[in-house]
Amino acid sequence: MPKILFAALPERWATYEPHLRQALADAGVTDADLVLAADPAEVDYIVYAPNSDVQDFTPYTRLKAVLNLWAGVEDVAPNTTLAVPLARMVDEGLTEGMVEWCVGHVLRHHLGMDAHIHGQDGVWRNGDVPPLARDRAVGILGLGALGQDVAKALAALRFDVGGWARSEKSIAGVRTFHGPDGLDKILSRSEILVLLLPDTPATRNVLNADRMARLPRGAVIINPGRGPLIDDEALIVALNSGQIAHATLDVFREEPLPETHPFWAHPGVTVTPHIASETRPDTASQVIAENIRRGEAGEPFLHLVDRTLGY
Amino acid sequence: MPKILFAALPERWATYEPHLRQALADAGVTDADLVLAADPAEVDYIVYAPNSDVQDFTPYTRLKAVLNLWAGVEDVAPNTTLAVPLARMVDEGLTEGMVEWCVGHVLRHHLGMDAHIHGQDGVWRNGDVPPLARDRAVGILGLGALGQDVAKALAALRFDVGGWARSEKSIAGVRTFHGPDGLDKILSRSEILVLLLPDTPATRNVLNADRMARLPRGAVIINPGRGPLIDDEALIVALNSGQIAHATLDVFREEPLPETHPFWAHPGVTVTPHIASETRPDTASQVIAENIRRGEAGEPFLHLVDRTLGY
Repeated sequence: MPKILFAALPERWATYEPHLRQALADAGVTDADLVLAADPAEVDYIVYAPNSDVQDFTPYTRLKAVLNLWAGVEDVAPNTTLAVPLARMVDEGLTEGMVEWCVGHVLRHHLGMDAHIHGQDGVWRNGDVPPLARDRAVGILGLGALGQDVAKALAALRFDVGGWARSEKSIAGVRTFHGPDGLDKILSRSEILVLLLPDTPATRNVLNADRMARLPRGAVIINPGRGPLIDDEALIVALNSGQIAHATLDVFREEPLPETHPFWAHPGVTVTPHIASETRPDTASQVIAENIRRGEAGEPFLHLVDRTLGY
Repeated sequence: MPKILFAALPERWATYEPHLRQALADAGVTDADLVLAADPAEVDYIVYAPNSDVQDFTPYTRLKAVLNLWAGVEDVAPNTTLAVPLARMVDEGLTEGMVEWCVGHVLRHHLGMDAHIHGQDGVWRNGDVPPLARDRAVGILGLGALGQDVAKALAALRFDVGGWARSEKSIAGVRTFHGPDGLDKILSRSEILVLLLPDTPATRNVLNADRMARLPRGAVIINPGRGPLIDDEALIVALNSGQIAHATLDVFREEPLPETHPFWAHPGVTVTPHIASETRPDTASQVIAENIRRGEAGEPFLHLVDRTLGY
């Protein structure tokens, strides 16, 4: 009878409990003991949100795995008290939502929608026809589960899609780049750049002043990934100079983004409030339940984090 | 040596001439005589824009076909002086552009983008998470070349897509409806409705007060098709009552839309200036050239208009 501790902000329990119980039953883990509190020495699995009270894993002496509820693991991967496997959330619902948000905002900028959304003043502005998607170069930095699916969806719409990852990857219909030289190359061609890298020491400020200068003049940046990927002050400078035409940002170093942050007032920035995608309780619970089934059956866990890489 | 008359507004000649000459050469029609003016009795083909000077086809006694530069044929199909085959423009570039515009605006409304584009006021509005596309019903009225491709692109993004046409059609991944009963059914389920019907006597005011009332409350209407499909006054009433939450309209009964038209000032309407898509000279010229090649080779023309149906 595996004991499963749900360790997240208390208000999440009401949302998740019915989905988790159903998913465990569906996965055949019929004897699971799903609880909100337990003697740490008796816990087999922790369903985990990094902002929960559990920050010291030392007392969890029989723990088999920590199953993260979030896609991002930057707040738990470096935790030195954690000595068991850590699984990231790879939620089909989260991925779908992210694809929708990214494709929507790429099309918004590709089509120049804002000029019409803001320009309801009786002036018939039909002069600027955008190029076809096949003549629009979009770059995706980060080709994990999210980046790959976003790249594929944009390629299906015939965008000229490039994708970059630290190491070499191959995706049908996408020009892939890797390593430091590849990063320079993809930047130099991307009229619209989408950031879907994890937050690790190696990716912080990956989009600094120097790299923004490599983009084509008037490029658009879309960041649904992680706030620290961008050097905020360098972005403001690049927006003011016209090097960057617009930035649509969903994630920030501090959230909620403080009301006084210059991003709110800048006409070249669209702030969205960390909504690009979120874990969906129904589909996420199925991922958690499948990993517990695997743990109980002695099968390898899915979606394990490489702690040395931090993702 | 087929004589081809280019009959469109004079400023289009500069744009089209090089593309048409190249496309004719590429199609193997090497002896074509492409001209801006000719003795009507000597003309074999007319490359035609319905707003050109040519409105009486009677003098064109050896004419083999009229090849329309536009997708819409409502201004030429009823012309009783025209007694030879009329081909509509089915331009790959136009279709692609239309797919991009429609998918972009469906995603814009699906994601509720406008609240963020307008709401850059320091308030972190992260309460409303949209459903996934798979739980969002989108309806397409009209399943011609444009409607089919828009339906397929939305289905690829996992929207719950319905499509309606006058007669029965089948499209993978799309629930299809037809006939008057089918129209009531698709309206009753479509949270976002896209109008891609041709302008014919049978489609005028197809979206009248009664049919708008069949939509789910708070539905969104997107019209990149033809202006007369919508009863404008009924739309304003439905917007004011909340039955329709928003309308994004690209085509109008009068274009440019007069500055005093209530659509411009209504907060529930986004006017775009007939930009959803346009014929692209390079790809359109290839379609024209292929039809001339077919005519010269005695092969059947592509994209013929059924004059009795008007499209």
